[in-house]
Amino acid sequence: MGELAGQAVEGTLYFAPHAEFERVTGSNLPAKERAAIFGDLCRLNALYMIARAGSGHIGSSFSSLDIVSWLLLEEIEGADVYFSSKGHDAPGYYAALIGLGRLDFELIHKLRQIDGLPGHPDIGTPGMATNSGSLGMGVSKAKGMILANRLTHRNGRIFVMTGDGELQEGQFWESLISAANFGLHEITVIVDHNKLQSDTFVKNVSDLGDLEAKCKAFGWRVERCDGHDLSAFAEALASIEGDRRPKIVIADTVKGKGVSFMEHTSLDSDVAMYRFHSGAPDASLYRAAAQEIMTRLNKKFSDSGMAPMELETIERPQPSALPATAQRLIGAYTQALLKQAERRANLVALDADLILDTGLIPFREKYPNRFFECGIAEQDMVSMAGGMALKGLLPIVHSFACFLSARPNEQIYNNATELTKIVYVGSLAGVVPGGPGHSHQAVRDISALAAIPKMTIVEPSCEAEVESLLEWCIDEAPGSSYIRLISLPWDVSYSLPSNYKPKYGEGVVLTEGNDVVIIAYGPVMLSSAVRAARMVTETAKLSVKVINLPWLNVVSPSWMKRTVQNCRHVFSIDNHYVIGGQGDAIGRTLAGLGASIPYTCIGLYDVPPSGTNQQVLERVRLDAVSVAQTITYALSST
Amino acid sequence: MGELAGQAVEGTLYFAPHAEFERVTGSNLPAKERAAIFGDLCRLNALYMIARAGSGHIGSSFSSLDIVSWLLLEEIEGADVYFSSKGHDAPGYYAALIGLGRLDFELIHKLRQIDGLPGHPDIGTPGMATNSGSLGMGVSKAKGMILANRLTHRNGRIFVMTGDGELQEGQFWESLISAANFGLHEITVIVDHNKLQSDTFVKNVSDLGDLEAKCKAFGWRVERCDGHDLSAFAEALASIEGDRRPKIVIADTVKGKGVSFMEHTSLDSDVAMYRFHSGAPDASLYRAAAQEIMTRLNKKFSDSGMAPMELETIERPQPSALPATAQRLIGAYTQALLKQAERRANLVALDADLILDTGLIPFREKYPNRFFECGIAEQDMVSMAGGMALKGLLPIVHSFACFLSARPNEQIYNNATELTKIVYVGSLAGVVPGGPGHSHQAVRDISALAAIPKMTIVEPSCEAEVESLLEWCIDEAPGSSYIRLISLPWDVSYSLPSNYKPKYGEGVVLTEGNDVVIIAYGPVMLSSAVRAARMVTETAKLSVKVINLPWLNVVSPSWMKRTVQNCRHVFSIDNHYVIGGQGDAIGRTLAGLGASIPYTCIGLYDVPPSGTNQQVLERVRLDAVSVAQTITYALSST
Repeated sequence: MGELAGQAVEGTLYFAPHAEFERVTGSNLPAKERAAIFGDLCRLNALYMIARAGSGHIGSSFSSLDIVSWLLLEEIEGADVYFSSKGHDAPGYYAALIGLGRLDFELIHKLRQIDGLPGHPDIGTPGMATNSGSLGMGVSKAKGMILANRLTHRNGRIFVMTGDGELQEGQFWESLISAANFGLHEITVIVDHNKLQSDTFVKNVSDLGDLEAKCKAFGWRVERCDGHDLSAFAEALASIEGDRRPKIVIADTVKGKGVSFMEHTSLDSDVAMYRFHSGAPDASLYRAAAQEIMTRLNKKFSDSGMAPMELETIERPQPSALPATAQRLIGAYTQALLKQAERRANLVALDADLILDTGLIPFREKYPNRFFECGIAEQDMVSMAGGMALKGLLPIVHSFACFLSARPNEQIYNNATELTKIVYVGSLAGVVPGGPGHSHQAVRDISALAAIPKMTIVEPSCEAEVESLLEWCIDEAPGSSYIRLISLPWDVSYSLPSNYKPKYGEGVVLTEGNDVVIIAYGPVMLSSAVRAARMVTETAKLSVKVINLPWLNVVSPSWMKRTVQNCRHVFSIDNHYVIGGQGDAIGRTLAGLGASIPYTCIGLYDVPPSGTNQQVLERVRLDAVSVAQTITYALSST
Repeated sequence: MGELAGQAVEGTLYFAPHAEFERVTGSNLPAKERAAIFGDLCRLNALYMIARAGSGHIGSSFSSLDIVSWLLLEEIEGADVYFSSKGHDAPGYYAALIGLGRLDFELIHKLRQIDGLPGHPDIGTPGMATNSGSLGMGVSKAKGMILANRLTHRNGRIFVMTGDGELQEGQFWESLISAANFGLHEITVIVDHNKLQSDTFVKNVSDLGDLEAKCKAFGWRVERCDGHDLSAFAEALASIEGDRRPKIVIADTVKGKGVSFMEHTSLDSDVAMYRFHSGAPDASLYRAAAQEIMTRLNKKFSDSGMAPMELETIERPQPSALPATAQRLIGAYTQALLKQAERRANLVALDADLILDTGLIPFREKYPNRFFECGIAEQDMVSMAGGMALKGLLPIVHSFACFLSARPNEQIYNNATELTKIVYVGSLAGVVPGGPGHSHQAVRDISALAAIPKMTIVEPSCEAEVESLLEWCIDEAPGSSYIRLISLPWDVSYSLPSNYKPKYGEGVVLTEGNDVVIIAYGPVMLSSAVRAARMVTETAKLSVKVINLPWLNVVSPSWMKRTVQNCRHVFSIDNHYVIGGQGDAIGRTLAGLGASIPYTCIGLYDVPPSGTNQQVLERVRLDAVSVAQTITYALSST
């Protein structure tokens, strides 16, 4: 879930080389001590990976690592499968696989790098049994695997790690029902019950109540234990062995376990937001955390009569700072929402456990009664918004674009058939940030929602446009609307006219030109467009008009006719798959005009990779240079 | 859920006029007797409505009617709200509102007629609090309404009727969690626990286990009673009054209650498929059922010292039979699937409680080990299919198009990112049958799935094309695919060339012509297209080429170029919203060619109404006459 943009740590970083892991796994230490030391080595390396990447999920990597270490060292064998349903604990699992030599050691330097280790699991990486990161799917996936095993007379148990916040997803409970009926005893679910979800304590977001009673009532065998006490965990596993029901072990863990100031138990549960769910620590916190782990490890080695560790270090440069002029749409959205809330007493905001990422904290502080935290329960949230709208409220519904457009897709449509007005706000939209990987890269959301009658989809190009589009959605939209927000701060070289007001279905010219027209939207694509236009102008001596068209599923034919007349070629650039993006709305309009101007849609064709923002943009050919090349090639072949 | 196409009953039909209801509601009978008689009057009228409409849900209308009658006569007051989350019990609720004079009595003759009473609830009908028919959303909607009430200092309780099969939907459990945390005691959920879902017994589909324990574990106050014993039901409601928790009353009911041979208790629970979930009874069963209800009613009146009923009758003509040549795609699909299953030992079929509608019974009989009944749990089903595909199986996943494309939308995408091959089969696709209304009219499914990388969407135009497209999806598709199936038998006047094989992205000519090109797909739209083409040819003296293009999200540019050259105008006809349908794939391709041929997409713009098939097609202007008019108008204005 949470995906705060962090910054890579500069200065000295520490990691344990493979030899240190071998020294532990090859030792004759008692199994529980061996796994505990192995887990701490993994913590050190996961911390390194996240610090170097500049983002990743420390808290749940650390809470799950003792269990993961025990499973990998002592439990999993032969055809057994382990995977994490929550997926954001991937850095810890990667560190363990690297420690065991099952992943190439050099990958330790490539978390969230292209052709490296994706932010969330992908089966392209050895050891990953399924793609996760979209919550709540794990048990269902495991059920399918077991039923396939049974059909093909294969053996093997499946251990599925889930979060606790993840249990707010309806699919989790949906999946328990038939698992019990099918008697899928081969499945053991381990709940990493670290008491916190993305933003703060589960009990403050959407309390799970009596989790053991719930799981038992669904017909599963349930055990509970301390997830950092490996004796207790091993006993729990042993006690359920042989039971013919599917099994759940609720493992009480500590988020951020292993670094005192990252442990959630250091927080005051009534107020605090947890700081180490996503993103990365700053340099001083990184070094304090690494030091604490290293000191403990050396003490453990020493207590076991083993020599101190020989760690490796690496010097990392200071990452280049973003210019002060970078556009921060989430911040602008926060202010715009507050302004609208002041105008409209019936405006309420709903959130699905992403209050930090979606910029809602100031709203919650100012309007606590008008803020509804729904937990990781997007379907429930959207249908609740539907009920609110029927009763005269104006619900503004927030989540990441990837989740909001897809998980409650049928619920959004159902609301639309009631002809009420709801504003959906999907942040983290588009192909970057590239780090989290495809579960979080929302490049299909326009398509998923565009056909809904009276639904207008808009994307602001800069801070100033956020406010005017939100106002338009509230005051003028013919029905519900979906605001697509780029979460990354992004440096842009264009600006909107000072008197600019969005006009339904019409774009605004950012650079003038007559020969070629490029239509795009949002800060990332428009930056590529403006820079590409400059390159094309220089190399091909053509004048290029770049247009910001903030309307993603509606285009005015008369505006389009005026805009493209006399030009040689029209290009659209989608921060989205080519199918179903803005390019299709433009194509439909151009075809309707019977305009004999060649038209090229630029956008994504395949599932995007995980990597740094620049790496991903280059790979999917949406960076300025690639866009310029595509344009030049198209011009030369028509 | 289930939506079998039925046939209107001919001959004499019976219904109780408003005076009979007034006689009961105005009587001084004890409340429980009054409600029971009222309920039976509603049964008679709901039966009439369904017999006249030719389809509707008798079983759950009858199981819920005693409760509905009690709620409306004795419980609901002032600002209280009642609605049904399952929605398919609408005929019973309509009958009750008509009996109370809250709906115009003449609407009794207009179930599933345009501008009448939709197959599932729509807020356009007085007394309907929310649009339902998509399962599992009701509690969430109620939560939103209560939170809005609290914010705006309004009172009122909400009674939500759910099915029991409906409780397999994850959203139901998702919605329970925060209701308990928010302490939404104003909500009372009544589970119409009639033990059957669409096809057969809940316990055979996906057993709910200890339902009371489950609901209690979610923090709700739970009572259980006989839902046909109104004393017991009233006591249950009284006992939970004042509890500050949200409340669930599990009402044990009998599906089809009130007509002996429709009562599920007359079935052998191990084998039988229930026949009165959807569709309509034949004339003799209708009359036997009506007679049984009328006899009981008159006995009740007599026992209460009241005069016998004065019923109204109406004579209905024999409905015109479908020609023997009508294309039945579901039947063809059944055969095609069996053939593929024989070829491929790894082929498995998954179903979400629609085995009757999706044509899977012969498959289940022949391959019981390769058939997986998942219950009304589409997200779980799709992710299970994902797990199976990762283990080497070829899952074929079935549901109605409206549900399959939307409810598990994120799960389908997640599977696609794993690059496995899965075939999704969505039946009941398109705007007809018009009876069920917008929850079941799948006119947004192409858009919802088209952008998924390597996902091919196809729709067969006739029985013969079903087999070849299924074979293509299995053998040749580059990734997963979605087969869109018209469920209605449809009489078509075209046929495919005898040597026809589908060619990726290319269409096949059904009628030759040079001036105008019409591209469409599926039996319903192609029938309109072929007939419209004939009309245009006759009136405008133009030759019209009609093309069947079974590829809904992919069009070959070179084929398109050959096809449209020298023509005056290109039309596409979508059984779908214009945005995101096949028309967009055609528009994108035409624009890419820079073809200076005017292009018009014909399709839906607004949420379609409920009505007979012909009424709906005419209203949305997709019948042959309307299509011809649209074409003629477009030709005259370009």
